[in-house]
Amino acid sequence: MIAESHIAHPELEEIELGGVLHALSDPVRLRIVAALAGGEELRCGSIDVPVTKSTCTHHFRVLREAGLIRQRQEGTTRLNSLRREELDARFPGLLGTILGAAYSDR
Amino acid sequence: MIAESHIAHPELEEIELGGVLHALSDPVRLRIVAALAGGEELRCGSIDVPVTKSTCTHHFRVLREAGLIRQRQEGTTRLNSLRREELDARFPGLLGTILGAAYSDR
Repeated sequence: MIAESHIAHPELEEIELGGVLHALSDPVRLRIVAALAGGEELRCGSIDVPVTKSTCTHHFRVLREAGLIRQRQEGTTRLNSLRREELDARFPGLLGTILGAAYSDR
Repeated sequence: MIAESHIAHPELEEIELGGVLHALSDPVRLRIVAALAGGEELRCGSIDVPVTKSTCTHHFRVLREAGLIRQRQEGTTRLNSLRREELDARFPGLLGTILGAAYSDR
């Protein structure tokens, strides 16, 4: 609980559309979000992205600061989950449409 | 016709989701796109954005290179229009959802 409080997350009303779009404009971050859209809490290393661990960590930070994901510390592991319900409340349909566009584009 | 051919536009299949999201992640560019969503061809100066003409020109270039707008030269004036139908074909629902999120956010 104490560890979690060290990780700053924007409140729902602080989440900005521009920040969300910028966060999702990177293909690696979009892939991370697509992986988290399954609903599971995932570690950096458990997502199949072609980047180093430090780059992955950076991408997770961008996603957290934009309000897309929630991070919590469990021992030495940082677990990540998508703030799906909150995002859907803030920007209805946005995440689903972008993920749909990303998948249909493949 | 000759002047128009000097302005490079990506083909529909070259338009990338990441580029579109990045282009729309800037509030000024989003405002420009919202203005063009009315369907009219507009000049840089006729859109109410709080930036200098050269910055406006820069934003239009980013939007054109991302595939969001079409630009054509008419005498000394560069006219801009949204590639709405093409974008809707490439990424169904994307532009409408983002514009909707931008408006509901105000």
